[in-house]
Amino acid sequence: MTRLVYGFGDGTSDGNARMSDLLGDKGADLAEMCRIGLPVPPGFTLSTEVCSYFFAHGHSFPPSLKDEVEAALAAVGRITGRQFGDATAPLLVAVRSGSRTPMPGMLASVLNVGLNDAVVAAIGRTDGDAFAFDSYRRFIQAYADVVMGVERDELEEILDLYKDDNGHLLDTDLSAADWRAVVDLYKARVSEATGQPFPQDPHVQLWGAIAAVIRSWMNARAATYRKLHDIPESWGSAVTVQAMVFGNRGEHSAAGVAFTRNPSTGEKLLYGEYLPDALGEEVVSGFRSPHDLTETARQLSLSEHAALETSMPGPFARFAAICGELERHFRDMLDVEFVIEQGELWMLQCRRARRSTKAALRIAVDMVAEGLIDAREALTRIDPLSLEQLLHPSVDPEAHRHILATGLPASPGAATGEIVFSAEDAAAAAHAGRAVILVRSDTSPEDIHGMHAAKGVLTTRGGMTSHAAVVARGIGTPCVCGASVLRVDRAQGILTAGATRLKKGDVITIDGSTGQVLLGRAAMLRPELTGDFATLMGWADSCRRLGVRANADTPADARVARGFGAEGIGLCRTEHMFFEHGRIVAMREMILADSEDGRRAALAKLLPMQRADFVDLFEIMHGLPVTIRLLDPPLHEFLPKSPADVIDVAAAMGVPAERLIERAEHLREENPMLGHRGVRLAISHPEIYEMQARAIFEAAAVVAKSQGVAVVPEIMVPLVGMVEELDLVKTLIDRVAAAVARETGVSVRYSIGTMIELPRAVLRAGDIARTAEFFSFGTNDLTQTTYGLSRDDAAGFLEAYAARGIMAKDPFATLDTEGVGEFIRIATGRGRATRPDIKLGICGEHGGDPASIRFCDEVGLDYVSCSPFRVPIARLAAAQATIKGT
Amino acid sequence: MTRLVYGFGDGTSDGNARMSDLLGDKGADLAEMCRIGLPVPPGFTLSTEVCSYFFAHGHSFPPSLKDEVEAALAAVGRITGRQFGDATAPLLVAVRSGSRTPMPGMLASVLNVGLNDAVVAAIGRTDGDAFAFDSYRRFIQAYADVVMGVERDELEEILDLYKDDNGHLLDTDLSAADWRAVVDLYKARVSEATGQPFPQDPHVQLWGAIAAVIRSWMNARAATYRKLHDIPESWGSAVTVQAMVFGNRGEHSAAGVAFTRNPSTGEKLLYGEYLPDALGEEVVSGFRSPHDLTETARQLSLSEHAALETSMPGPFARFAAICGELERHFRDMLDVEFVIEQGELWMLQCRRARRSTKAALRIAVDMVAEGLIDAREALTRIDPLSLEQLLHPSVDPEAHRHILATGLPASPGAATGEIVFSAEDAAAAAHAGRAVILVRSDTSPEDIHGMHAAKGVLTTRGGMTSHAAVVARGIGTPCVCGASVLRVDRAQGILTAGATRLKKGDVITIDGSTGQVLLGRAAMLRPELTGDFATLMGWADSCRRLGVRANADTPADARVARGFGAEGIGLCRTEHMFFEHGRIVAMREMILADSEDGRRAALAKLLPMQRADFVDLFEIMHGLPVTIRLLDPPLHEFLPKSPADVIDVAAAMGVPAERLIERAEHLREENPMLGHRGVRLAISHPEIYEMQARAIFEAAAVVAKSQGVAVVPEIMVPLVGMVEELDLVKTLIDRVAAAVARETGVSVRYSIGTMIELPRAVLRAGDIARTAEFFSFGTNDLTQTTYGLSRDDAAGFLEAYAARGIMAKDPFATLDTEGVGEFIRIATGRGRATRPDIKLGICGEHGGDPASIRFCDEVGLDYVSCSPFRVPIARLAAAQATIKGT
Repeated sequence: MTRLVYGFGDGTSDGNARMSDLLGDKGADLAEMCRIGLPVPPGFTLSTEVCSYFFAHGHSFPPSLKDEVEAALAAVGRITGRQFGDATAPLLVAVRSGSRTPMPGMLASVLNVGLNDAVVAAIGRTDGDAFAFDSYRRFIQAYADVVMGVERDELEEILDLYKDDNGHLLDTDLSAADWRAVVDLYKARVSEATGQPFPQDPHVQLWGAIAAVIRSWMNARAATYRKLHDIPESWGSAVTVQAMVFGNRGEHSAAGVAFTRNPSTGEKLLYGEYLPDALGEEVVSGFRSPHDLTETARQLSLSEHAALETSMPGPFARFAAICGELERHFRDMLDVEFVIEQGELWMLQCRRARRSTKAALRIAVDMVAEGLIDAREALTRIDPLSLEQLLHPSVDPEAHRHILATGLPASPGAATGEIVFSAEDAAAAAHAGRAVILVRSDTSPEDIHGMHAAKGVLTTRGGMTSHAAVVARGIGTPCVCGASVLRVDRAQGILTAGATRLKKGDVITIDGSTGQVLLGRAAMLRPELTGDFATLMGWADSCRRLGVRANADTPADARVARGFGAEGIGLCRTEHMFFEHGRIVAMREMILADSEDGRRAALAKLLPMQRADFVDLFEIMHGLPVTIRLLDPPLHEFLPKSPADVIDVAAAMGVPAERLIERAEHLREENPMLGHRGVRLAISHPEIYEMQARAIFEAAAVVAKSQGVAVVPEIMVPLVGMVEELDLVKTLIDRVAAAVARETGVSVRYSIGTMIELPRAVLRAGDIARTAEFFSFGTNDLTQTTYGLSRDDAAGFLEAYAARGIMAKDPFATLDTEGVGEFIRIATGRGRATRPDIKLGICGEHGGDPASIRFCDEVGLDYVSCSPFRVPIARLAAAQATIKGT
Repeated sequence: MTRLVYGFGDGTSDGNARMSDLLGDKGADLAEMCRIGLPVPPGFTLSTEVCSYFFAHGHSFPPSLKDEVEAALAAVGRITGRQFGDATAPLLVAVRSGSRTPMPGMLASVLNVGLNDAVVAAIGRTDGDAFAFDSYRRFIQAYADVVMGVERDELEEILDLYKDDNGHLLDTDLSAADWRAVVDLYKARVSEATGQPFPQDPHVQLWGAIAAVIRSWMNARAATYRKLHDIPESWGSAVTVQAMVFGNRGEHSAAGVAFTRNPSTGEKLLYGEYLPDALGEEVVSGFRSPHDLTETARQLSLSEHAALETSMPGPFARFAAICGELERHFRDMLDVEFVIEQGELWMLQCRRARRSTKAALRIAVDMVAEGLIDAREALTRIDPLSLEQLLHPSVDPEAHRHILATGLPASPGAATGEIVFSAEDAAAAAHAGRAVILVRSDTSPEDIHGMHAAKGVLTTRGGMTSHAAVVARGIGTPCVCGASVLRVDRAQGILTAGATRLKKGDVITIDGSTGQVLLGRAAMLRPELTGDFATLMGWADSCRRLGVRANADTPADARVARGFGAEGIGLCRTEHMFFEHGRIVAMREMILADSEDGRRAALAKLLPMQRADFVDLFEIMHGLPVTIRLLDPPLHEFLPKSPADVIDVAAAMGVPAERLIERAEHLREENPMLGHRGVRLAISHPEIYEMQARAIFEAAAVVAKSQGVAVVPEIMVPLVGMVEELDLVKTLIDRVAAAVARETGVSVRYSIGTMIELPRAVLRAGDIARTAEFFSFGTNDLTQTTYGLSRDDAAGFLEAYAARGIMAKDPFATLDTEGVGEFIRIATGRGRATRPDIKLGICGEHGGDPASIRFCDEVGLDYVSCSPFRVPIARLAAAQATIKGT
C-alpha cells in the first residue's frame, strides 16, 4: 500500500525537499526545514496521489487515507500537547494546498480548522474572547466560502452592517461580545444559505477543508493559470495540514515575510517586512503599513516604527541566522514567511524567491563567488528570456500607466513618440529629429524604412509572427501587434481607442514586453549591461555546444549582433536590401521589363548597391561566416499596392499607371506564401540570382584585398523542394564564381546550401545533400507548410484554439516538436547519411526561443541563428541545453 | 566480349521478339519474323549497346564492331548471292534506326547504301538505267542530308530546276539520261557544299550511315519526343542493316502497308493499301492514291483500281496467311509493311498497331473470344485514359478546325455554344434553352451555377487544377483552362484572340480533350458505350482489389457516378450545396451575424435544404457508403467579390454595403489555402458543423424509414493537423447523433474520419487514428503543402520548370510518389499501427489518374475516389494495378 500521508515536526520528517512531486513545493520545503532542525509547526502532508485518486474516483478518498490522517493528527497532538476538538487544550490546524510549482493565490486554503463553539470558549479562557471569536469568525468566513459555497462577500456584508449599526469603524473597535454576536449572525446566514448548520465536528471540518482544497485544483482560475504556465493537470495538488501558530497573540507576537537578499538588486542583505501582534495575511494585505526587519532598512525608509532587529532582538537574531542557514542549505535566495508567537519563532514557509533579472544575475554570480554554487549551476538559475529586460529600455514598473489597449508583446522594449500613420511620415519625422511611433493596421515590406525610422511600431492586426513583428524583432524596434481594440483611420489620421480619439502627433508609449499601449509619455528605465551580465555570458560561451549566429540584413544589424556576441550571420535576407530608397526603383524597372535584356539592364543598376551592402557586412563580420539567402519574396511584393501609391510610383518611373496595374495584376497570387518565390524565381528569372552571386563574389574579393581577411560566404537558396532546383542554381553560382575569380584574381572559398522549409525538402534531404553543403531550417515557413497554416492569417482563429485548449503554444513562437520537430530529425538524419559533415542550423524565429534551442541541441544541429537582440538569450539557452543534456 | 551484332535471314536469327531492349522494336520484330520462317530480307542489327558506347566514347565505335559487321555482311551476301560493292551482283542495304518503343519519324535512316558509279552501272545493266539512276539519286539525296549535312532541299531544288529547264513535269518524265545528268549535278553540289566528293566506297558509306543513324538519337526533335513520352535517353537506338528489296521493279512488283484488323472499328478484316511498281515511301506519301488490298474494301471504296487480292492473287494469299500467322504469334493486332519484288513477297516490318479506343476494346474482347488472349491480358491492352474518348462527345477528327487558341485540356469532351461572360448570363441562357460556353479569366465558387448551366467552360488563367478545371471535371463539363493568348474584357463583353474579336453570343467550340478553342460550330461524335465496354469493365471489376468511388456533390453527380459503376461516394463536398441560389443568402446572413445566436438562426434556415440534399444522395446511393466532408472553404469565399456584386448583394440582403465590405475585409486572408478553413471553422464556429451533422443524421433517418435501407454515412473532417481538433468535432457529432436518435427513434450507424491533407496530419497519423475510423488522402492539398505550392498560382511558373526539365510531371495530375507518396506510406503505416482495420482511401484529383492509382494499390489503400467521369478509368486502372502487382 502506497503511503499517502507524510508527517513532519519536532526535528524529523517523512519527506524532504526533493519530494515536491508528491508533497507539493510547500509540503516538501516544510519537511526539509523540519528535517534540518528549524522551528516548524508540526503537521503532515497528503500526497498528490490523493488528489489524483479523488478526481479519478468521483470525488472520493482512498480507503486507507482516514487511518493515516488520524494517526498523523495524533502525532501532531503529541508534539503540541493539544488535541483536535479538545475543549481544554484544543489543536487548530491550517489546511493548505501545494502544487509542484507555486501557483500563488490560485488554490484554496482554510485556516483555524478545528474551531467550534466549545473550542472557542476554551481558547477564550486562555487567550481572551476577543482573540478567540475573531479567529472563529475568520474561520467561519473562510470555511463557508471555500467549503460550503457561501460567498465571502455575503458574510463580509453582515460584519459591515453590524459595525454601522453599532457605530464601530475598525475591526479593532469590536469587543469580544461584538465578535460573539457577529459569529452568531454568520452561523445563521450560513444555515439559511445552505440549509444546514455550520459544522461543529472538527473532523467534519477537517475533511470538508481537505476536499475543498483538492477540488480547487480544478477551478477555472487554476485551470487558466496552469495553461498559461504549462503546468499539467495530472500533477495535482498536495494538501498540508499544520498546527496553527498565531502572530496576533499580543506584543511579543508578530508575523512577517522576508527575502534573504534584495529581490530587485540582488544585494546580499536581508530584506522584508513584519507587523507586531498581527496575522500573516495582514502583513501583505496593505491595510496596515508593515515595518522594516533591519535597522539599516529602517534608516533608509525613514520609518518611525522600530525594526524587528530592535523590537525583538532575540527572535530576529534567530531568524537572521536561520535565513543564512537556509541559503546555505538550499543554495539559493529564498522567500520566507515566519511568525513569532509570544516570543517563539516559527518558520511557516520557505521557497525559491522571485527576483528581477538584474538581481538574478547578481545573485548567481555572487553565489559562485561565495562558493555556494558553481558556474554551471549559476547558468541554470537564469531564465534566458528574462535577459530581454536588460537589453531594451523598459517602462518603469513604478510609473503610472494609462492603458489604451493591450496587444501582443511582439518585440520587446518600450518606446515613446508621436503617432504617425505612414512610413513616409515616420521617415520625415525621424529626419527632423522627432521620435515617432508608426501606427498601422498592418505593415508590408514597403514600410521597412518607416519601421527603421520609428522608435516603435504598433499594429492592430497580425500575430507574433506577422510582418511587423518579425521585422521589428529583427531590427530591435519595440513593437506591439494585433491591438485589435484599436481602430486606425489612416485617411482621417485618427487612432481610436474606445472613447479616446488620438490624432497624428499625439504622444503614446508602447511596451513591447507586455503588449501595452499607453497614453502619453511613460517613465523609462535604461538598459544596463552590468559586469554580472558579461560574467554570466562568458560562462555560457565556455559551456555551450551550439553555435549562435544572428539574423542580420543590414550593417546596423550586424554591428548589434557582434556586440551581443553573435559568431556569424546565419541569415542575411537580401530582399530587404531592395526596399531601400533608390533601389526599389531599379527593382521595379526590372519587374516591369518585358525581356531578359531589360531585366539585366535594371539588375546592372542594382549590382553596385548590392555589392556595397555585402562589402559592409563582410567588413563588419571580419571573417566570421555570413549566410546569404538569395532573393526570396514574390516579385509583386516590390510593387505598390494602394491606388494612390500606384499613381505616385508610375509618375516617378515615367510609365503609365495602367502598365503598373496590369503587371501587378499579372503577378497577383492567391497564396503568395505558396507562390512564385524563392528558388522558383531563379528557375524563371536566373539573371536575378546571377546578379546577386556576382555582388557576393565581387564584394568578397574587395574585402579580401582591403582587409586581408578571407571571407567565406555561405550562399543559401530558399524554398528548394527538389534537388534539381538546387543543382540548376549551383551551376549558375559556380559559373559566376569562376568568372569573378578570373576578373578579380581573387578566388573566394564559398559554400552553397539550402533552406529546409518545405516538407518535400525534408523527405528529399538525402538527395538535396548531394548538392547542398549546409541546411538551414527555415522553421517559420516549415511550420506554415507542416500545419498548412498561414502565419499572416492565423492570429484570429488561433485564439479559439487557445481558448479551447487545443493548441498549448503558438507554434510560430515555440517549435512544434511533434510535427516540425520530427521533420527536423528526418532531414538531419537523411542529410547526414548522404553528407556526414553537412553543416546544420536553424534560422527561423525559433532560433531565439529557449525551448526550441533545447530541441535544436538535442537533435544535434550545429548552430542557431536569431535576431540580434536574442543573441544573448540564445547563448544562455544553448548553455542550459548543454548542461541539461549532460 | 559481349556480342554487338545480331544477324537474321533465311529462316534463322540470332535475336527474337523479346530482345527489343537490345535490338530495338524493329530489329527484334524482324528477327522474330525470320525466326518463325516468314520471308524477311536478310540483315543484321547493331545492338543499343553500340549506341551507348558511341556517346560515351567521343562518337567512336567499339573495337570489335568492325569485324562483327563484316562477318554479318558476308552472311547476308551468302544468302542473297550478292556482294557489297560488287560490280556484277551488288548488294544494297537499308540502314535503319530502332528504339525500344516506336518513335515514328524522329530518327534517321538511309536506304540504298552501297550504290556508287560502278554499282549503278551494274544495276542498270540488269534493271535498266532509269531504275538504277533513280535509286542512285535518291540515295545521294538521303545520304547527303543525313550523313553529310547537305540540306535535302538544296538537292531537291536542283532537280526542280533541271525539270523546268528541260520541260519535264513529273519525275516519271525523266529518262535514264536525265537521271544520270541529275546525279552528276547532285554530286557536284555535294562536293561544293562539303569540300569533298560524294563517297564511292560502299564501306565508307555504310559506316557513315550507321554513325549518322546513331547520332540522330541525340537530335533535338528526338530529345523533345523522348521527354514528351517518358523515354529515357539511356535506352539508345539499335541500327538495323538489311538487304534492299524493291517494289518498283516493274508490273510484278508492289509495296504496301496493312493493319491486320480495322484500326478504327476493330473489325476483324485485313485493312490496308498498296501501290503497284512503287516504293514503300510512295504508298504513304500521298502523291499517288493507293489501292485497296481486298476486293471487299475496293467495293466499299468504289475504287477503279484493282485490289491486290485480284491483281496479284498469289502473293496476296501468301500475305493474308502471314498476317493471320503473325496475329496468332504476337496475339495482337499488327501494323505491317511489305514489298512484292517481281512476284516474291517480302515482309519489311511488323509492330503492334495503334488503334482507336473503340477498336482497342473490340479487339481485346474479340481476341479473348478467339482464345488468343485471356481476360487479364485483355485488360492490360487498354490505356485507361483512352476511355475518356468514349465517355464524352468529341470533335470529329475529320472535321475542319479553325483554331483560335490552345489552352490546357482541363476537362474532357467537346462543347459548342454562344459565348457568355458571366455565370448569371449562363444561367439565363440555359434557362432559355440556349447552349452557352462560359468564358472567364478564371472562376470562383460563385460561378458554380453558371458552370452547371453552361455546356462548356473556357478560362484564360489557371492550370489543370485551377478552380474551373476541378469543378468542371467534377461535374463532367468540358473545360479548357489557361488559354493565355485569349484576352477577356468582361466589361466590354469582348473576347480577343489575336486579330479576332468575338462578342457575347458568338459561337465557339471548345475541345476539352485537346485544349483547343475553335471558332464556330464543329462536327461532333457522340459517346457510345458499346457492349465491348461493358464486357471489359466487368472483367476489370472481377479482377481489381481497390474499390472505386466517386467524388459527387449533387444528385446529378451521384446518378452519373452510379451509372459509371461507382461503389459509393468517396467525397461529397458540402460547401457546393451552399452556393446554390437561395442558400447563399442564408449563408451570407450567417457570416454577417454578430453573435452565435444570429449564426444559429441563419443556419436553421439552411438545415432543411441541406437535409433534403442528403436525402436525395442517400436515396440514389441506396445503401452504398457516402463520405461527407463537412464545410471546408474559408467563409470569405461565400461573400461577393466585385464592387458591383457587393452592392447587389447588400441591396438584396437589406444591409448597408459598408457592412458587407467591412466583414469581407475582416475575413480577407493573405493565404486562404492556409487560412481559416476546414476544421478550423468548427473550432471557432462549432454551430456550422453541428447543423451539418444534424442534417446528415436526420436525412439518414428519413431514408432509413422511407427506403428501408440502412444508410451508413462516413463523416469526414477536413484539414485536421492535430488529434485534438478531431476529438472536439467527434464529441460534437456524437452529441448530435444521440439527440437525433432520440428525436427520430432511428439510430444511424456512422463513422467519423478525416482527410489527411497536411504534413502534420501525416506525422501524427498514429494519434489521429485513435479517433478517426478512416483516412481519406486529400492529395490536392497534401501536394500543395508538401511542395509549398499553390495550385492556383503554379501554372505560370511551372512552365519554366517543364522547359528546364526540372519537373517531369505536373504533381497535381500525377502523384509525386517521392514526396507526397512517402507521406501516404507514412500515414498508412502509422494509422494502421494504431487501428489495424482503419479504412484508407484517396479523394484528390489523383484518384482518377492511372499511374497514381497503381501507387495507391501498391501502398494498400482500400479505395480510390475520383470524378464520376473518371470512374471507368479508375476501374480499369485498378484492375491493371492488381494484374501488375501479381
